[in-house]
Amino acid sequence: MVWWGINGSIVFCVYLIGCYQCHFKYNKNNGKKKKIRRMSVDKRNYSEGFCFLLSYRLYKQFYINCGLMEQLTVENVQLLPAKNDDHGGVVIELEEHMDSDVFLTLLKTSLSQWTTQGKKGVWIKIPILLVNLVEPAVKEGFCYHHAESDYVMLVKWIPETTSTIPANASHRVGVGAVVLNHKREMLVVQEKNGPLRGKGIWKVPTGIVDVGEDICTGAIREVKEETGIDTEFVEVLAFRQWHKSFFEKSDLFFVCMMRPLSFEIQIQEVEIEAAKWMPVEEVAAQPFAQKESLLRYITDLCIAKVERDYSGFSPHPVTSGVIYLNKRDLN
Amino acid sequence: MVWWGINGSIVFCVYLIGCYQCHFKYNKNNGKKKKIRRMSVDKRNYSEGFCFLLSYRLYKQFYINCGLMEQLTVENVQLLPAKNDDHGGVVIELEEHMDSDVFLTLLKTSLSQWTTQGKKGVWIKIPILLVNLVEPAVKEGFCYHHAESDYVMLVKWIPETTSTIPANASHRVGVGAVVLNHKREMLVVQEKNGPLRGKGIWKVPTGIVDVGEDICTGAIREVKEETGIDTEFVEVLAFRQWHKSFFEKSDLFFVCMMRPLSFEIQIQEVEIEAAKWMPVEEVAAQPFAQKESLLRYITDLCIAKVERDYSGFSPHPVTSGVIYLNKRDLN
Repeated sequence: MVWWGINGSIVFCVYLIGCYQCHFKYNKNNGKKKKIRRMSVDKRNYSEGFCFLLSYRLYKQFYINCGLMEQLTVENVQLLPAKNDDHGGVVIELEEHMDSDVFLTLLKTSLSQWTTQGKKGVWIKIPILLVNLVEPAVKEGFCYHHAESDYVMLVKWIPETTSTIPANASHRVGVGAVVLNHKREMLVVQEKNGPLRGKGIWKVPTGIVDVGEDICTGAIREVKEETGIDTEFVEVLAFRQWHKSFFEKSDLFFVCMMRPLSFEIQIQEVEIEAAKWMPVEEVAAQPFAQKESLLRYITDLCIAKVERDYSGFSPHPVTSGVIYLNKRDLN
Repeated sequence: MVWWGINGSIVFCVYLIGCYQCHFKYNKNNGKKKKIRRMSVDKRNYSEGFCFLLSYRLYKQFYINCGLMEQLTVENVQLLPAKNDDHGGVVIELEEHMDSDVFLTLLKTSLSQWTTQGKKGVWIKIPILLVNLVEPAVKEGFCYHHAESDYVMLVKWIPETTSTIPANASHRVGVGAVVLNHKREMLVVQEKNGPLRGKGIWKVPTGIVDVGEDICTGAIREVKEETGIDTEFVEVLAFRQWHKSFFEKSDLFFVCMMRPLSFEIQIQEVEIEAAKWMPVEEVAAQPFAQKESLLRYITDLCIAKVERDYSGFSPHPVTSGVIYLNKRDLN
């Protein structure tokens, strides 16, 4: 405290000298008297502006050092860079390094202004490199909305009314690929990792759809990655919804029918223990493919598709993405 | 620095006195000589343990104050509370307030131990109330994995091998409900908010599926909330996948056929401007329901369902959730 006190006093003296210099120059220029605190940079010449900014920064630092930042009421304080969104709110995307205390002051001032303007949701995207700004934002009443590896998005609802902040992503999307050759053999794999590891269970190639990837593209990619087989997407035979799959999130798993375009297997060493073409009935006969299990449904659907013209959902482009529907019944 | 220096010296003196007392008592008890630093709490009596812990805490505080935490190498340092996961990693769920410096020390020591043990992914769940621990975790090489309003989950992959950390949730799931009465009239609404606000467009009730909610349950809930109509879920007529729907996330929208169980409309004032029963052909004739638009497909599917026995996907329970499939074609 002694150290801050000494430094604070020096800083304040420099500030007073700065003010005096401005005041002196100002009076010398036009002879009129006016409150120093009302000075605005854009109305003075460069040297005055510089002098004002220097003294303002030192003055602010003095207040920060004394823990009295709350009382700072100097005019012309900057706001955080924000864009309006389509729902009456604002979005702040921080990119450059900033001192936590400076950020807190700017945030308080900005929030005060947005409240006056009747803004609703305030979003702050903080890159991981600026992690020092997360704590001050939370202390100003922000909550997390979502996070990706390199940033966290925080949000605060200003009005007294019920929040209409949109929900975070809730589902992970997986695909299972049914690839059948002309001998009624299904492309199956044994996994090297996960709960089925070492159990000798033959199952269809599966995987997680990448961010921004279509279900049909994801299915083609996964089969190629795991087995080296090229395929063409036919249709979605069924899908399963499952909750609390990982970290309280849900899971949508799409069973996809694929047509093989190549037949020579080359397994991916990291994830796959073994891969082969196996008669559908043998896949279904495994003890693991019991009543009501997903693998049982997968083999049943596959047999229905080849023997009884089962109609799944096939993809069609629409203005907003891709729609999957029963094309045979629609036409 | 002077302040820290004085305090540090006092702390260190107290530490030395503590050590001496331990040493003295130890020698008095069995007469053997042994290095003080090798003392282990579980091998001594309570008073020695307490004395050691007190001196250790003061000694640690001294190092923290001097900014020399990195050099702290005292034995018996506590580890963070962690549970093993099913994939060779560990999960830390923090619940109690902790000083950032103490956390950083515990984290470094724990990471060192887990590295020796060959652990893979390390997960830290930090509640929003412990936001002060986010910055130290990031500085130790952790990235964000995901966040919900009240916590952030961080993760670090220890081995040199490619990370197999599972992907974050990538999709938001929405439902649109096609509710048709016996007069071929469709239940439609006009929205009070969002992009369709004030445009006079009649559309089916829509909404976002809650976390952990089944698609069929979500559709029943949304119709009831928006219009007061009770319904029974029939089947999924189609679904649409759309990317970059919000914050780079994707969107899966399920078009659901519903059977009405009541007919008197009571609109939800907050979200809905108006609601009514409208002939299907009139809904389809709106300029908004143009070629390749989602609303056009919705009305086409509805007409196909009532006129040509269109078969969608109906839900069936499986051991892992609910599977939606074409029941007519499977049997």
